[in-house]
Amino acid sequence: MLIFWATGCKYKGNEIPKAEGTPSAKPDAVVSDPLPSWNNGPLKESIIAYVKGVTDTASHTFIPVIDRIATFDNDGTLWAEKPFVQELFIQYRVRRMVKDNPALANKQPFKAVLEGNKSYFTTGGDKAIIQLIAAMHTGMTADKFELAVHDFFAYATYPRLNVPIRDIIYQPQLELLQYLRSNGFTTFICTGGTAEFVRGISWQLYDIPKYQVIGTTFKYQYNDSIKSVIRQPVLTLINDKEGKPAGIATFIGQRPVFACGNEGGEGDIAMLTFCQGSRYPSYQLLINHDDSTREFYYQEQSNASLNAAAKNNWHVVSMQKDWQRVFPDTSQQH
Amino acid sequence: MLIFWATGCKYKGNEIPKAEGTPSAKPDAVVSDPLPSWNNGPLKESIIAYVKGVTDTASHTFIPVIDRIATFDNDGTLWAEKPFVQELFIQYRVRRMVKDNPALANKQPFKAVLEGNKSYFTTGGDKAIIQLIAAMHTGMTADKFELAVHDFFAYATYPRLNVPIRDIIYQPQLELLQYLRSNGFTTFICTGGTAEFVRGISWQLYDIPKYQVIGTTFKYQYNDSIKSVIRQPVLTLINDKEGKPAGIATFIGQRPVFACGNEGGEGDIAMLTFCQGSRYPSYQLLINHDDSTREFYYQEQSNASLNAAAKNNWHVVSMQKDWQRVFPDTSQQH
Repeated sequence: MLIFWATGCKYKGNEIPKAEGTPSAKPDAVVSDPLPSWNNGPLKESIIAYVKGVTDTASHTFIPVIDRIATFDNDGTLWAEKPFVQELFIQYRVRRMVKDNPALANKQPFKAVLEGNKSYFTTGGDKAIIQLIAAMHTGMTADKFELAVHDFFAYATYPRLNVPIRDIIYQPQLELLQYLRSNGFTTFICTGGTAEFVRGISWQLYDIPKYQVIGTTFKYQYNDSIKSVIRQPVLTLINDKEGKPAGIATFIGQRPVFACGNEGGEGDIAMLTFCQGSRYPSYQLLINHDDSTREFYYQEQSNASLNAAAKNNWHVVSMQKDWQRVFPDTSQQH
Repeated sequence: MLIFWATGCKYKGNEIPKAEGTPSAKPDAVVSDPLPSWNNGPLKESIIAYVKGVTDTASHTFIPVIDRIATFDNDGTLWAEKPFVQELFIQYRVRRMVKDNPALANKQPFKAVLEGNKSYFTTGGDKAIIQLIAAMHTGMTADKFELAVHDFFAYATYPRLNVPIRDIIYQPQLELLQYLRSNGFTTFICTGGTAEFVRGISWQLYDIPKYQVIGTTFKYQYNDSIKSVIRQPVLTLINDKEGKPAGIATFIGQRPVFACGNEGGEGDIAMLTFCQGSRYPSYQLLINHDDSTREFYYQEQSNASLNAAAKNNWHVVSMQKDWQRVFPDTSQQH
């Protein structure tokens, strides 16, 4: 996957990108393995069998294209989450702002971010987080925020793995997204992160347009004098846990038939349960972070996600066993 | 346009509908007139010239597919609004509910609806409207609400024109939507009506998926015990006037380059202004309800929409002069 970060655009010159939902493979082409980074075995077979079943017009499991909705969590599901990329972005933004205005270093919430004082936010709850987001967006339009996101991705690197942020996306998941789309699915990101942040890179990283990203949402207000919208310090959706089905209902207006999340923070149980309530045949996939060598090993203390998977017959990805490769091969890129 | 209302589905059997955004015409096909219900003249020529300019990779006016976002108002822009269809739906639902439970006839807000007491809602404002919506949705999941919408469209007729509701959509606009999509645009509805109501018929009437409908939005809550989402009596977005750019920022996350609204209620001025702020070449279209013979003649007292159009060089559709036909030819359908 070639990404032209320098220009902030994936496409060179006037090259036309593909339309959303348009199969990129020719209908007649024989694709030998649509998921080359997935190890052969029962899990990979079950994904392919599901897709074949719902696209077969002669089968009772057939699903019309308009109802082939797939939702993916982002942190820990499409890219690594130790630490959260959005956390890195906040630190990056705060440092930038303090560089421009050193007096901020002694003011909250900047002070807490610079000192790595997490308890300020965990004890402060929503109010502290809203204060932080509000502070980061003071006087900033949606257009300017996106430039800040691009700026971050162009220069930042991911700690522990010591690579550019774009290299911490999971290669098997890029293949799965593409495989679903080439079979008429519309793929959505359904993330606990803020919508605008993920929208800033969803097309470049995942071929997912901004309007197919559902995230934690703040209220907007239109300012006619500058003909722009400004984000207000008012949360309208916390898109995590039970918030995810609510976000899906608000933004998509229908249940997904395919949903993929990860264990680690119990964040996707409600989304997968909601998906399983579909009147169509549905598929639930849960990533298990059990690969301490190539990624990070972490398990929920409660084991709630894996317990729900066992109880409801969801499919569980062992990163260690099911993924032949975790991250993209970037040796050709740089 | 054939619509199979009886089955609640546009497609017979397992026929596969086209994927969103997929050009339905072959790339090489010569289309003699993409807008046959539009009279020839400067307005039609300007639409076609705009679309050719933004799809020409050799032109400085070229826009990448991912940024070809078009937003359309619904009431008075895609279908007639005298009266509002959603008002008819409310009356229909209330009568159904009262039939099932006659005691409701003496309770507000049902009483006001049955008596045609509009002042109850105009003086009661948001609170009265929220009360009405809440009353109509008591104990109803999103899935059940959609069935109620389908039920309404299957049986209701439009007053004054005395036709099924599906026959009050504007044929020239169906052609315009299709023309834009076949040129790589993604078409959104941006309506003052409630999102769920319009989503109930957007695919059947306009080939627009649910997730490309932005409307007035209520808060959802996920109920784990029934694995469904329930609409709460809390408004999160009033998608009218200045609410439209806010809705677009929330749901689409980027400015449209093509926006179409109508004069009549001053509802689309902010959306068209927001569109005009695009960094790309943009196109604003405003429908003027000046055809008393084939549709309804009505003009704003303030003339605000037409004044804004004149001031900002927006394109104005004279329904009387620019549209060769207003409604679909349904003589073959019934």
